[in-house]
Amino acid sequence: MQVTIPNFLKQRTFLTPHRQAFIFENEVWSFNDMYERVKVLSRKMVTLGVKEGDSIALLLKNRPETVFIIHALQQLRVKAVFLNNKLTASEMVFQLKDSEAKIIIHDIEFEHISKEISNSYPFILIKSQNEIETLIETEINFVDEYRLDDVCSIMYTSGTTGQPKGVLQTYGNHWWSATGAALNLGISKEDIWLCAMPLFHISGISILMRSVIYGMPFYLMEKFNENLVNKLLCSGQVTIMSVVSTMLQKMIASLNNQKYHQRFRCMLLGGDPAPRHLLETCTQKEIPVFQSFGMTETSSQIVTLSPEDSLKKLGSVGKPLFPAQLKIFQEGKENEPSIPGDIMVKGPNVASGYLNRPTANQTSFIDGWFNTGDIGYVDEEGYLYVLDRRSDLIISGGENIYPAEIEAVLLSHPNVEEAGVTGIKDPIWGQKPVAFIVLKNKTSTWEEELVEFCQKTLAKYKIPKEFYKVNQLPRNASNKLIRRNLIRYITE
Amino acid sequence: MQVTIPNFLKQRTFLTPHRQAFIFENEVWSFNDMYERVKVLSRKMVTLGVKEGDSIALLLKNRPETVFIIHALQQLRVKAVFLNNKLTASEMVFQLKDSEAKIIIHDIEFEHISKEISNSYPFILIKSQNEIETLIETEINFVDEYRLDDVCSIMYTSGTTGQPKGVLQTYGNHWWSATGAALNLGISKEDIWLCAMPLFHISGISILMRSVIYGMPFYLMEKFNENLVNKLLCSGQVTIMSVVSTMLQKMIASLNNQKYHQRFRCMLLGGDPAPRHLLETCTQKEIPVFQSFGMTETSSQIVTLSPEDSLKKLGSVGKPLFPAQLKIFQEGKENEPSIPGDIMVKGPNVASGYLNRPTANQTSFIDGWFNTGDIGYVDEEGYLYVLDRRSDLIISGGENIYPAEIEAVLLSHPNVEEAGVTGIKDPIWGQKPVAFIVLKNKTSTWEEELVEFCQKTLAKYKIPKEFYKVNQLPRNASNKLIRRNLIRYITE
Repeated sequence: MQVTIPNFLKQRTFLTPHRQAFIFENEVWSFNDMYERVKVLSRKMVTLGVKEGDSIALLLKNRPETVFIIHALQQLRVKAVFLNNKLTASEMVFQLKDSEAKIIIHDIEFEHISKEISNSYPFILIKSQNEIETLIETEINFVDEYRLDDVCSIMYTSGTTGQPKGVLQTYGNHWWSATGAALNLGISKEDIWLCAMPLFHISGISILMRSVIYGMPFYLMEKFNENLVNKLLCSGQVTIMSVVSTMLQKMIASLNNQKYHQRFRCMLLGGDPAPRHLLETCTQKEIPVFQSFGMTETSSQIVTLSPEDSLKKLGSVGKPLFPAQLKIFQEGKENEPSIPGDIMVKGPNVASGYLNRPTANQTSFIDGWFNTGDIGYVDEEGYLYVLDRRSDLIISGGENIYPAEIEAVLLSHPNVEEAGVTGIKDPIWGQKPVAFIVLKNKTSTWEEELVEFCQKTLAKYKIPKEFYKVNQLPRNASNKLIRRNLIRYITE
Repeated sequence: MQVTIPNFLKQRTFLTPHRQAFIFENEVWSFNDMYERVKVLSRKMVTLGVKEGDSIALLLKNRPETVFIIHALQQLRVKAVFLNNKLTASEMVFQLKDSEAKIIIHDIEFEHISKEISNSYPFILIKSQNEIETLIETEINFVDEYRLDDVCSIMYTSGTTGQPKGVLQTYGNHWWSATGAALNLGISKEDIWLCAMPLFHISGISILMRSVIYGMPFYLMEKFNENLVNKLLCSGQVTIMSVVSTMLQKMIASLNNQKYHQRFRCMLLGGDPAPRHLLETCTQKEIPVFQSFGMTETSSQIVTLSPEDSLKKLGSVGKPLFPAQLKIFQEGKENEPSIPGDIMVKGPNVASGYLNRPTANQTSFIDGWFNTGDIGYVDEEGYLYVLDRRSDLIISGGENIYPAEIEAVLLSHPNVEEAGVTGIKDPIWGQKPVAFIVLKNKTSTWEEELVEFCQKTLAKYKIPKEFYKVNQLPRNASNKLIRRNLIRYITE
């Protein structure tokens, strides 16, 4: 049975018009305020020739207008193609062609890159967010319902190899993600979710979707700033926040002796596997960290550590959300507990596939199960431990080496600010691990110290054979370490 | 896309084995305890020849064993046919034949009626709950997933005219009902839901389903007892309760000057339209009443008054749950606000139809909308006010008279304990309203007093033309007034 449910924003505004929808700097929008703005914008888009089923690309910052535009596209059942702001023009052109986007709407700061796109791909209509505002309105009837199988958003995965792939996220995927998360984290009318992740990333857009589905305000931040975040968390102005490790590390570094307000109930930690020492610090500081595991293809978290287990299972990302399932797979069969293998997930929040990628769809989506490309294992009780990306795995003399494990050890050294580990070719061992370090203080003996430090906890084959001091590590728009780019420090 | 989600109890036990599942008298079962019992029971049922797709009728009281049996059937994907304990043998036989139930499982107290059933319908296997216990176990694999479109339970509507109809409630209907309710009422890990409604009624079984979906304990009560309920609510042992008006009235009558604990956050009031004076009393006593509207066909509440509106819109049952919709329909088109008409609802919690009733399905389920058979209107803001059952409507001299409105006036008289109003034939007016009253104190002038009282607030045509003093009103197993049976006081 094809399930339809009411147009999210229209229904939410009908049900609770006066509840807060979101906060930006010192301004607050109720669902009613927002819907009025969104209706105007939708009518202007219609004037531009936008219609149901079209794809429109967005090159926008975390600002109120962006929230309105995202909702306006949903009012028209138009697919939003979220462009990562940090991409080059040629990378964007690839995504525009692949998604057959008719229009780009960009913030004024992206005027220059939009012109570049226009030069190499003149078939696309480019409009600044301000230009949309100047359009006249065309009267239309707004849709009453969404079909859960309809595509709502297209988001390109950074892609570990080859071209990025456009993940087709349906209204249903977002719905099930939001309700699955609610069954784990609870829903309270006191909640305000801090969105310091980019809205073009699944961790950002999923907050916007939860807001309209739960009837919960979110606090939108244009750019992550640890001092401002700490202020919000200490004063109790927000109750939940989504972060990745590097953000959390910066927050803790600038927190000093302050404590987060007791209303702050959930630090939802995603992205890379979190270093153990970070989790331990959070435990000491009584920060309620919920480790989670998820990706663009799962429309946000799919495995999360429950409240009751957050201390007992430190380092685990937990168990699947209620509507989801998980298995560890290797060579066509499920692994026993504690044996690492491919992490496979299933659930109605998992995207139905990639756009225009029949081969990738065949290899990644098998009988309803999605192969995440990550390696991990479950313990006897079914808690998931993520080791690494399959593609980041280093095989040295037949031994599997997980970069994240080495990085976690390095990060626990007092002089290490950031650490990245990858494999390089080795004539004897096939591959060997090498480390890239951002130091806190440059000392003459830093390398020897790190080797000695590693020898205390790591098997010999796991100890990096070379160390490189760097000023920063390659990270993507959501601050995730891109290990395959580490090698450029040596080769370029 | 056919959505599958994990077997509710198996997944819940996997995710949170040690959380409380339910409480009965002084005993507590965790999800793990319960699942162990349920697995044993399921294996015994298999020995009995029960298999996926079968229908099994249950004639059981609100007891732990009943909870286990309901879950055991779900483990086997067997449909549970819930028999109302108050039915006669011949009424039960009708439902057994209609649902093609293979077996009845009954509590020992229903031995006698089971024998009666056996006499008139020897083709059914009858087993007491104790007999099931004595069976040996057959090893099986438990299902990992439910298809949301599969039928989970069959529940017969009391039926206002003609034979009762078996409502087909799917796993998806229960799922969407639970998650839709959660989006309105919130989910807190402090919650314990009091189930004093029969488990064979949708208001009871829906608590059991929410428990396993939310991971929330419920407090099971064998039989509603206002003193025990008040004790639980005053001590804060439960936080939410489902009631109908008559239960709430009894609770208030015996509450005296006590107050419910501040942890008690929701009195979910369903069933008949609630008398205004009852709601006003609850407001005075700071009882957090959430009026709601729902039925067997909507798998529990579908329209509920939100927290923020409970005082502002006293008397309304609120707005639809997030995944649901509502319209007032008359003669093929939607009515304007404040014009009464048929209440139509739509949503993924609405049953797909009745078993073996193609004609009823055609008239009641139209383009995905279900005609509830109730009459009501919405105000300008979309809040629903339920007037009455279409079939209880009295038409007198061309005027519509809603029995519930008259009853509410009568109930606000200090000497009226209960009141029921129905229409009887009248040679001049077609029909005329008559009232049946349970008095608090018998006085010689009670009738004159009530007429005088009605004259103050009711138009002349609405004032009952005859009054009958009775000892009790006809109610069904969930305490709902059955107006069509009032007439028996005169005719029998």
